[in-house]
Amino acid sequence: MKLIPLLVLLLIGTAGAQARDQAPAIAIHGGAGTMDPASLTPEIQASVEEALTAALTAGYGVLEDGGSALDGVVAAIVTLEDSPWFNAGRGAVFTHDGRNELDASLMDGHTLAAGAVGGVRLVKNPILLARRVMENSPHVLLTGDGALEFALREGIETRPPEYFHTDRRWRQLIDARNRKQASLPPAYRMGTVGAVALDARGRLAAGTSTGGMTNKRWGRLGDTPIIGAGTYASDVAGCAVSATGHGEYFIRAAVAHDICARAEYGGQSVAEAAGFVIRERLVEMGGTGGVISIDGDGRIAMPFNTSGMYRGAVTTDGEMQVAIYQTPGRE
Amino acid sequence: MKLIPLLVLLLIGTAGAQARDQAPAIAIHGGAGTMDPASLTPEIQASVEEALTAALTAGYGVLEDGGSALDGVVAAIVTLEDSPWFNAGRGAVFTHDGRNELDASLMDGHTLAAGAVGGVRLVKNPILLARRVMENSPHVLLTGDGALEFALREGIETRPPEYFHTDRRWRQLIDARNRKQASLPPAYRMGTVGAVALDARGRLAAGTSTGGMTNKRWGRLGDTPIIGAGTYASDVAGCAVSATGHGEYFIRAAVAHDICARAEYGGQSVAEAAGFVIRERLVEMGGTGGVISIDGDGRIAMPFNTSGMYRGAVTTDGEMQVAIYQTPGRE
Repeated sequence: MKLIPLLVLLLIGTAGAQARDQAPAIAIHGGAGTMDPASLTPEIQASVEEALTAALTAGYGVLEDGGSALDGVVAAIVTLEDSPWFNAGRGAVFTHDGRNELDASLMDGHTLAAGAVGGVRLVKNPILLARRVMENSPHVLLTGDGALEFALREGIETRPPEYFHTDRRWRQLIDARNRKQASLPPAYRMGTVGAVALDARGRLAAGTSTGGMTNKRWGRLGDTPIIGAGTYASDVAGCAVSATGHGEYFIRAAVAHDICARAEYGGQSVAEAAGFVIRERLVEMGGTGGVISIDGDGRIAMPFNTSGMYRGAVTTDGEMQVAIYQTPGRE
Repeated sequence: MKLIPLLVLLLIGTAGAQARDQAPAIAIHGGAGTMDPASLTPEIQASVEEALTAALTAGYGVLEDGGSALDGVVAAIVTLEDSPWFNAGRGAVFTHDGRNELDASLMDGHTLAAGAVGGVRLVKNPILLARRVMENSPHVLLTGDGALEFALREGIETRPPEYFHTDRRWRQLIDARNRKQASLPPAYRMGTVGAVALDARGRLAAGTSTGGMTNKRWGRLGDTPIIGAGTYASDVAGCAVSATGHGEYFIRAAVAHDICARAEYGGQSVAEAAGFVIRERLVEMGGTGGVISIDGDGRIAMPFNTSGMYRGAVTTDGEMQVAIYQTPGRE
């Protein structure tokens, strides 16, 4: 007799939590920059596209199985961190001192919970550490050796320095040491990875991971570990954003939060706001890069003001797309 | 003959740059928290009020002499950092390891230039280092030992560890080590200082400086070094904000940028937006603290959701005020 009301209550509870029967969607990026079809060989392009496809498959797979936007974002980013083709995790750029110092951040739009790490060494997947900061610490942002100490205490997977080494990034460091840091080609500070997603319950999430800028020093942090600059997500605003580009400009313009704020308070769509911030506001300031964004209905935008951005998406109708260069006539 | 056009040009140039004949204004804070008239002895209260008055006098003096909002903000914050009564510079709280790790950020609303440092040791005035990062590096945010290395290279003044020591903060550390970090009294993570100003040319600036949270570890950074969370300024938005409070909540809500965005896109006044974010949005999230804000006409607001906030202002009519507790009926 007492079981029936309880069951009804449970069913109502479940129905309430899954009230929205939303078709999920996900978008990812692997960095924006000057991409020259001449230097990007067909073999490299195929490898990059394969890695983007694998990340989308991993992230969308989670969402299709009823997983959360947060889990989908993390699954996609882990795949990109594990690929040597992007400036995150394995394949990260080198600091002035020849090390790999990694930044990442993650935000759950449903709860506004967030976690981030800056300048952490030896952690295989910084996005998993950012998640652990969010879930197992009272903090949002941990940095440097302290972040590594927290990672070890939490049993987060680490790797020796050589795991992160790629010859391509090492050559970029040698080259960068012979130039003025401010005049580095955009490719030397690009390659950041990120993901945004909407799950079947209508929840949003965003995450970003990077090795930062080649030849960086003095414990420099860019926009990637900064909630509001490189990453932001809010179900109430109906907006999730992950950024990639010249981090200093993205911090000063608070890019990720600004896009969500223009949508929430200014009446623009998230796609319009993302396009305006990247193509007008940042261009005025002199900042290069791009973002991926998704709104509460799963509409994706991927604007950038460089010649290319490694990117991909699975839209609400289940269609997967991967692209590198500007595609005139469509977003 | 050629001198006359040049002189005319110079005069026009000067007039153009000083086109607005704005009465300057400044506001400062020395932290928000649970302030109990019983434990705050009349002697301590007098000392705190004296320090606040000295900071206002220094900052407003710069503005009265035609100095920039940026210079006014820095002058006020240096005074507060040098006082042992606030959790910034001398008098900063101790980390879990018994050290003083300092955070600061600074933003020029006129140019949107910004500089910040996180977790830096031994620097007498972190706000001066943040300014140097803004002016002499291609970066916005430097952290840890790297930030100290940059400071030494730039000839920024340092002090030995004992300079930063105060018995009061040491006792807080001993006490905090015996508690769970998450349950620390608000006083243990409060005391951050900051300033916002409008100068005679209508330019805005904001800055913030802190020792962070007593017993912090793992390289934790709060909102103070985060442009968009603890500090934001934009002449175009007509808004400058400096925050103090439980930093993790201020990062997740992107408090300083959110107040400016609500004013710029949402049609609220800066004062209304500041009040809403502190008294409604943060209260909903569970975040305690306050902000000081100023708009393009010099209107100041100093809302907080705690029992008190050390604060003070010189308004556009030249009137100086200093306060600690809630003052019913006025902002």
